[in-house]
Amino acid sequence: MRVAVVGATGAVGREMIRILQERDFPADVVVPLASERSAGRAIAFRGRELEVRPLSLEALDGVDIALSSCGGAVARTFVPQAAERGTVCVDNSSAFRMEPWAGLVIPEINPEEVRPDRRVYCVPNCTIITTLMAVAPLHRAAGLRALSVASYQAVSGAGHKGVRELAEQIGKLAGSEEELGHPDPEALPRGEVFGKTIAYNVVAKIDAFDPETGFTFEEIKMAREAKRILALPDLEIAATCVRVPVVTGHSVAVEATFERELAPTEAREILAAAPGVRVMDDPANLVYPSPLEAAGGDDVLVGRIRRHPDRPATLLLFACGDNLRKGAALNAVQIAEAVLRLR
Amino acid sequence: MRVAVVGATGAVGREMIRILQERDFPADVVVPLASERSAGRAIAFRGRELEVRPLSLEALDGVDIALSSCGGAVARTFVPQAAERGTVCVDNSSAFRMEPWAGLVIPEINPEEVRPDRRVYCVPNCTIITTLMAVAPLHRAAGLRALSVASYQAVSGAGHKGVRELAEQIGKLAGSEEELGHPDPEALPRGEVFGKTIAYNVVAKIDAFDPETGFTFEEIKMAREAKRILALPDLEIAATCVRVPVVTGHSVAVEATFERELAPTEAREILAAAPGVRVMDDPANLVYPSPLEAAGGDDVLVGRIRRHPDRPATLLLFACGDNLRKGAALNAVQIAEAVLRLR
Repeated sequence: MRVAVVGATGAVGREMIRILQERDFPADVVVPLASERSAGRAIAFRGRELEVRPLSLEALDGVDIALSSCGGAVARTFVPQAAERGTVCVDNSSAFRMEPWAGLVIPEINPEEVRPDRRVYCVPNCTIITTLMAVAPLHRAAGLRALSVASYQAVSGAGHKGVRELAEQIGKLAGSEEELGHPDPEALPRGEVFGKTIAYNVVAKIDAFDPETGFTFEEIKMAREAKRILALPDLEIAATCVRVPVVTGHSVAVEATFERELAPTEAREILAAAPGVRVMDDPANLVYPSPLEAAGGDDVLVGRIRRHPDRPATLLLFACGDNLRKGAALNAVQIAEAVLRLR
Repeated sequence: MRVAVVGATGAVGREMIRILQERDFPADVVVPLASERSAGRAIAFRGRELEVRPLSLEALDGVDIALSSCGGAVARTFVPQAAERGTVCVDNSSAFRMEPWAGLVIPEINPEEVRPDRRVYCVPNCTIITTLMAVAPLHRAAGLRALSVASYQAVSGAGHKGVRELAEQIGKLAGSEEELGHPDPEALPRGEVFGKTIAYNVVAKIDAFDPETGFTFEEIKMAREAKRILALPDLEIAATCVRVPVVTGHSVAVEATFERELAPTEAREILAAAPGVRVMDDPANLVYPSPLEAAGGDDVLVGRIRRHPDRPATLLLFACGDNLRKGAALNAVQIAEAVLRLR
């Protein structure tokens, strides 16, 4: 079996290769592909060095499964064609997520969407994966009606360049408490990735603004992908997506309203039995999740589960997941594993 | 007129003195008071150096107005007694906020609570000040029914020691992208102020947990203070309070439900006319607020105003305020100004 990783030198591509190795994915050959600019670089896999080759349809000839993380524009240039030629594509971009012929899959939540008639699968938005890993098991038990999400998203969601921009700005702003507390707006490093200074700041804009509604496309993606994944077209959902100066690990503060009341203890039991979820929720012992604790791991961490004081059928919770792993690369490899099980 | 600043060497106390000077507060004498440990230090005021003296009831003799930011336990030892002796006390702690004999005042919102029969006033919680500065003008227009808040709170909310802890940890974690993306949990600096690492992380716990409900007392304070300030005992409100690695400036992602529908354009007009609020909401020109832009200023910045896609009477917005200024010192000085106007 030949497996290609498209965008192999990117932040998510590197995790894909790492996770293929960690999970002992049954690939005979792994083919790392990237842009012309990155071609020729070497990537370690199972103790060997693989040479990165430039992406082309020819490079995908004979590839059984392609995992890709290369942005929507590039994905559009090869995913449909490669799928037509027989390669199962698992794509991390938002290009095909709402196409009925493509599966939008979180394997723990809607594995039935991996079907023999499909050759294209999409990894959902990283923040909605983290959110739904925590909420979907509760939905199955009590029927989800409404979801409000405020996010705390890591800079690695914007790739290596996002991490570099944060690191550079942290260096530039290494000033006194006085300077940081009363910054000179003219002196703030603006950066090219996040639009505003991201060091010692939060930026309430991820992706572009939709001029019609004022939501960002990140927020819009979260809403429409949640409805599709849960098969709940009438779900009431709104998100505010905010970038924070965290390297890896997206967090979400969630308010979820259900058809029937769900006690926090019951919610904890349900989540403790849910695959891919780790409950970290013991206030008496100061146990609750944070993104640094989620980073590098496979589980979405869920805690701070509590009942809305004025609405008995509403729960609040806080969840953290590694945006490069469960939010992207791990979910992609899990989809590929589900595809293999079909055969 | 004699004005005392209690806790004059703290992060908020310093802002109080700075703001008394900036606003040309009509004090003849300013008396900086602090703990024994800080006594003897010098504080600049109107081009002179004032010597910090130790706090005692005697030191408050003859003081007309005391602005205090010294924690609830210390406030309890002198505020009621000093008020009894004739000093008007404006306290930044949570000690007296729910006492009917004390005013809980945001001067732009409930100035009628500054009354001749009161000698104790409380500055509300910094995060609910930021939230209500944005929401109260909309409430007056359309009747607030429900409020969901997720916060992004700066480390200076925990005082100088919080800022120091962030700075120290940023220094310790100056590692590679690889190290920051896959941290060794054992190597993470835990710190004494925030419970978890705050550098490159977010911490979903501010103040202690209430064992009964699972909410933190920061979240509980926000709910009960909002109800009192808006005189809305039936307001449905829940918050998730999260510390972020920002030095100064608290932000809130708010979902607010009203009695009647309010279009975003109408909300923008109302807020543009509200004192102490600056609307920064022009997505087409990438205008929206961030805490670094709020830091050092007086206004609460409000933007990202948009209608919930599934609930026409619900608006979402994002607001940022300087937690040391409008969230604490400025609001205290404004209360003192309102007290003077009573005379």
